Amino acid sequence: MRGRFLSIEGGEGAGKSTQVRRLADALRARGIEVIVTREPGGSDGAEAIRDLLMQGAVNRWSAHTEALLFAAARADHVEKVIQPAIGAGTWVISDRYVDSSRAYQGVAGGIDDAAVLALHGFGSRGLLPDRTLVLEVPPELGAERASSRDGAGADRFAARERAFHEDVAEAFRRFATAEPDRVRLIDASGDADTVAAALEAELADLLP
Amino acid sequence: MRGRFLSIEGGEGAGKSTQVRRLADALRARGIEVIVTREPGGSDGAEAIRDLLMQGAVNRWSAHTEALLFAAARADHVEKVIQPAIGAGTWVISDRYVDSSRAYQGVAGGIDDAAVLALHGFGSRGLLPDRTLVLEVPPELGAERASSRDGAGADRFAARERAFHEDVAEAFRRFATAEPDRVRLIDASGDADTVAAALEAELADLLP
Repeated sequence: MRGRFLSIEGGEGAGKSTQVRRLADALRARGIEVIVTREPGGSDGAEAIRDLLMQGAVNRWSAHTEALLFAAARADHVEKVIQPAIGAGTWVISDRYVDSSRAYQGVAGGIDDAAVLALHGFGSRGLLPDRTLVLEVPPELGAERASSRDGAGADRFAARERAFHEDVAEAFRRFATAEPDRVRLIDASGDADTVAAALEAELADLLP
Repeated sequence: MRGRFLSIEGGEGAGKSTQVRRLADALRARGIEVIVTREPGGSDGAEAIRDLLMQGAVNRWSAHTEALLFAAARADHVEKVIQPAIGAGTWVISDRYVDSSRAYQGVAGGIDDAAVLALHGFGSRGLLPDRTLVLEVPPELGAERASSRDGAGADRFAARERAFHEDVAEAFRRFATAEPDRVRLIDASGDADTVAAALEAELADLLP
């Protein structure tokens, strides 16, 4: 039996890392084999591409070049890590996936959603998660949580303006409206236990 | 007045580097401002991507990932180096360009020519050279010349089998047949003076 493929999305300070860890633990407690991975990166090749994407000046790459690099990193990640895992019956939880490219490159670079999906179709055969969980927090809370990190979140994307992050959040809401079965919005403004319970509730139909 | 954009193509050992240098000198002798560049690479970002493409095992990247990385490198090269130069009236000679992606990824990875051109359309707005000069040598001569280098040519591509290099040469011939005005085949089996003269002859209609 194929493993399930889950992605966790959300803006800066939404608590993705914490919730990815908790979800993996909760699934393992049910006897499910789970690997946790992340984007950009997740495979040796994709991590090397990640370094190019996350370091340097905000305008280091044009929007189009950036979209191609994300698609290349994802293609390697899918081929080397995600497909082999789900093929072997392991569940995969990815901290970000193609919806981040759609949201960030679409908003920041004005890249057509159809173009991002075309690159994804080419590089990763269009593989989509069985479910995508979008952690939503009010922008103030996200900014507060993100800025309280000790520098770990300070990359080319975290450094952008507040209006940018609001547009990204709006993009994720559009994806949820367009694909309600795959993409679910989670209120992530509460404490970690409450959010974790909400995540699990959105996976009820996928659990064995 | 816009500068002209020329690309020099050809397999291993065709003498591209020598002829690129000679052509630049010949154009400068006519009072034309010229920059020489190369692919993959040619801009800071693209050179960083080049390192990912040229190093490591032959099968480090899938054909699709490789095609995306080449398209990303080319997008950066076009945006940062080629377009600014030709916009300022400078001629650009690039050692390899999109026809190398079409030939190598098409042959090695079975990637559709239309797909390579779609990535090029996305990343580099489909910019094509004013003229592409393909240096052709018999496979034996190319292999001999390439192997006589002191290791400088030994990268992931030079290491491939002879049948591969013959298929690449055949791909370049197809491009010349399909686009006779842009793509010209040059017999590069003679001495450097003879080849240089043949190159210049193919540019006669572009010269001021």
